[in-house]
Amino acid sequence: SPSDREACCGTQSSHRLLAYSDALISIIATVMILPVAHTKVEDNEELRQSVQLLLTTKIAVYLMTFLIVTVAWAAHIRLFQVIVRIDDCLALLNLACMMLITFLPYTFSLMATFPNNILGILLFCGCVMVIGVIQSVIVLYAFSRPFLLNEQIQISENQIFYKRHILKVIMRVPIMCLFASIFSFIFFQLSYVILAIVIFLPYISQFIKWCRSKAIGQVEETPDSMLFYTYLPNEPLSKERVEAFSDGVYAIVATLLILDICEDNVPDPTVVQKQFGGNLIAALQVYGPEYLAYFGSFATVGLLWFVHHSLFLHVTKTTRFMGLLNTFSLAFVGGLPLAYQLTHEFPRDSQNELEAIQISCVIIFFAGIFQLIIWVVALYYEQETLHPYVRYGGREHVFMLAKLALYPCVALGTFFLTCILSRFSAPIFHLMEITVPFAFLVLRVLVRIGLALLRLIFCPNRANLKTI
Amino acid sequence: SPSDREACCGTQSSHRLLAYSDALISIIATVMILPVAHTKVEDNEELRQSVQLLLTTKIAVYLMTFLIVTVAWAAHIRLFQVIVRIDDCLALLNLACMMLITFLPYTFSLMATFPNNILGILLFCGCVMVIGVIQSVIVLYAFSRPFLLNEQIQISENQIFYKRHILKVIMRVPIMCLFASIFSFIFFQLSYVILAIVIFLPYISQFIKWCRSKAIGQVEETPDSMLFYTYLPNEPLSKERVEAFSDGVYAIVATLLILDICEDNVPDPTVVQKQFGGNLIAALQVYGPEYLAYFGSFATVGLLWFVHHSLFLHVTKTTRFMGLLNTFSLAFVGGLPLAYQLTHEFPRDSQNELEAIQISCVIIFFAGIFQLIIWVVALYYEQETLHPYVRYGGREHVFMLAKLALYPCVALGTFFLTCILSRFSAPIFHLMEITVPFAFLVLRVLVRIGLALLRLIFCPNRANLKTI
Repeated sequence: SPSDREACCGTQSSHRLLAYSDALISIIATVMILPVAHTKVEDNEELRQSVQLLLTTKIAVYLMTFLIVTVAWAAHIRLFQVIVRIDDCLALLNLACMMLITFLPYTFSLMATFPNNILGILLFCGCVMVIGVIQSVIVLYAFSRPFLLNEQIQISENQIFYKRHILKVIMRVPIMCLFASIFSFIFFQLSYVILAIVIFLPYISQFIKWCRSKAIGQVEETPDSMLFYTYLPNEPLSKERVEAFSDGVYAIVATLLILDICEDNVPDPTVVQKQFGGNLIAALQVYGPEYLAYFGSFATVGLLWFVHHSLFLHVTKTTRFMGLLNTFSLAFVGGLPLAYQLTHEFPRDSQNELEAIQISCVIIFFAGIFQLIIWVVALYYEQETLHPYVRYGGREHVFMLAKLALYPCVALGTFFLTCILSRFSAPIFHLMEITVPFAFLVLRVLVRIGLALLRLIFCPNRANLKTI
Repeated sequence: SPSDREACCGTQSSHRLLAYSDALISIIATVMILPVAHTKVEDNEELRQSVQLLLTTKIAVYLMTFLIVTVAWAAHIRLFQVIVRIDDCLALLNLACMMLITFLPYTFSLMATFPNNILGILLFCGCVMVIGVIQSVIVLYAFSRPFLLNEQIQISENQIFYKRHILKVIMRVPIMCLFASIFSFIFFQLSYVILAIVIFLPYISQFIKWCRSKAIGQVEETPDSMLFYTYLPNEPLSKERVEAFSDGVYAIVATLLILDICEDNVPDPTVVQKQFGGNLIAALQVYGPEYLAYFGSFATVGLLWFVHHSLFLHVTKTTRFMGLLNTFSLAFVGGLPLAYQLTHEFPRDSQNELEAIQISCVIIFFAGIFQLIIWVVALYYEQETLHPYVRYGGREHVFMLAKLALYPCVALGTFFLTCILSRFSAPIFHLMEITVPFAFLVLRVLVRIGLALLRLIFCPNRANLKTI
């Protein structure tokens, strides 16, 4: 019986293992923003110049790390959509895999700091190859105990075909990394090209397929292909795990600022005694902008999470393409700690302060707009991916649009305000951010009034009928 | 119909809101170890002396923060065991609550750094009072829309009784904080006493009840009391949320070290050029102990998570008392980053290094032993709390014991080794940690051999029968 087998073989639901992996990967993906945010920007220097300096290495490292780690995470999802039950051995193999994934950001910073040294490439390729080998072992182990597998594969007659197909897809990346590490000894620039190809491989192969299908005509899919390891944009991506990963990113971003505050903004007792005559309140007033920045930052991240939560509540199926858009949105959310570090670092009413606010607005705008695009893409396949209420014409359709559009609109409005009003300052910006939640509370009322007005303008007869 | 109501009132399952809250609270609880771990210990000084300096303030802040934040978290669980569905308004109120909870560690560091200044107390009490008010608003809001409530309460006739009881329990803390803040102006030492009472209030009232029941005889429970807000040690605590919170703590602890490595241990290109003649490998060899410490730390945290995961897989119900033990275990897990910071900071073969290893062993020992105690406590009520396989006499009983006992035993063994062998060093320690996973892999085999041997010694006849 299955429960007997479960006891003697010690198989377990994989739910918690995946939740833990999601937490680890989301923290690692987001954390490379810290070296960026902690870079001291000199006051006398122009922000633009120093930001350009940052852009060249650290922001690039952050974005690339985020991209690569999410690629590894997507591969992890794909693997554990095939393997749905685990045992102790798989749990330990997965932990080994996680250990190497969390080491990737470091190899990447080495590459960015020493682009001409092959050590970074070798370390990175070494990690990726070992991860690939571990994942292959996981696949071989799971296929040798078929009760660990997805039910669809378990009952399928083509198990060996699936095993080969999955192994082929998994081993493609480590083999290319092997080539990259060999080439690094001969002509290391080529290695970077190979690594870039590795990341964009699924998209490239998808694009080639698309071109071929347009040129030759519709290519029939193999009839046996269930949506595993296809890299089609509508391949399903576990919604639960997309949510868990996003929660991790939002949680770590929301708390990054308070970590800094707890570590740096507790004044030294001797300094308080000497400089402020023992007056703690006066000493803490120096940190005023930091506190305001913290509450503003927490409110913004919390509300972006809230919008994400509202959106995914009505999403019934997540596709690869939606996952990609979600990654872009999260990459910008991860940039928020940098924005807040900048907004409270400059003296009031300086040009730098205005530019820091503008950078914040741009980051918030893109974080919000990608959430909106996820919904638009979901609407495109609304029968499969959306709950009826938020589909076009659904009850919550307009309200959902208003929720998703609020942050892009606020960010855009603030951006133009900073261009017009030169007296606009960071405290005003943070106060604005703290008041946005109230906008969410009255949003439902506002949407109703807006709809009523629209009805009144465009179909006054029906509105009259209703009021009568 | 319920689905209609869901659409028009916009109610939602609270699952993801709670997962996000758990992630936030676990990060905040763990993060106060950073100021401890980042305190530079001077080489020429004796470790013991500096550790004593640390102990007085920073470790106390860490432990108290951990305790207070987990108290807030337990209150949050209790609240959302009563309110099982949410809407937008509750989600926003909860985010406001989270914002204040994440600010608590800062008020606590102020209190610890300036124990004679009342500002820290006032800020702390202010936060707690606002949190209490928000929670009361949440309760009032939820009881005004009963479809948000737990089904048991929804169908109960005593809704008003429950509302009053819950409000009374929730408001007790802010009211005591109000007294504490008033007393702080008159005689501030008393405020600390009141705050300590607030934390231990449930245990004190439970103890008084127990004493009374022993003195007078068994007091009958009110017949209507379902296990909400009772503070009985066997009051259920959502198992899912205990797991989510633990996952968050383990994940952030596992990654704290790589954060430091990514930020501090990428050498400066100019330094590499000048000091090492451009030889990156030589420059990185300086950081060798850090890498080893990272892999050792990740392996230890990962395996402690693995043991926790195995344990909770067989737990069917979590009680308040088990939750408390889990908090103690996690508090020690949170101390691991400090241990690792210490182990790689000292020169090889110094007395300091040995003491750092001993501190690590003590921390690992307690983290492991509290996990073991959770299981022992669960065995005490095994009918309710444990899966049959791990109950006394169950198939997995001995194997579970072996898993839970492995880390305490290894830690104890290592501790005594450091006392005997003066040549024991941090690299050996970290290498040992990396080899422990293999112990887990062969554990099942070892347990079988051990059982067979025991059988052979104590009941040779039965063993002979089996082999025949």
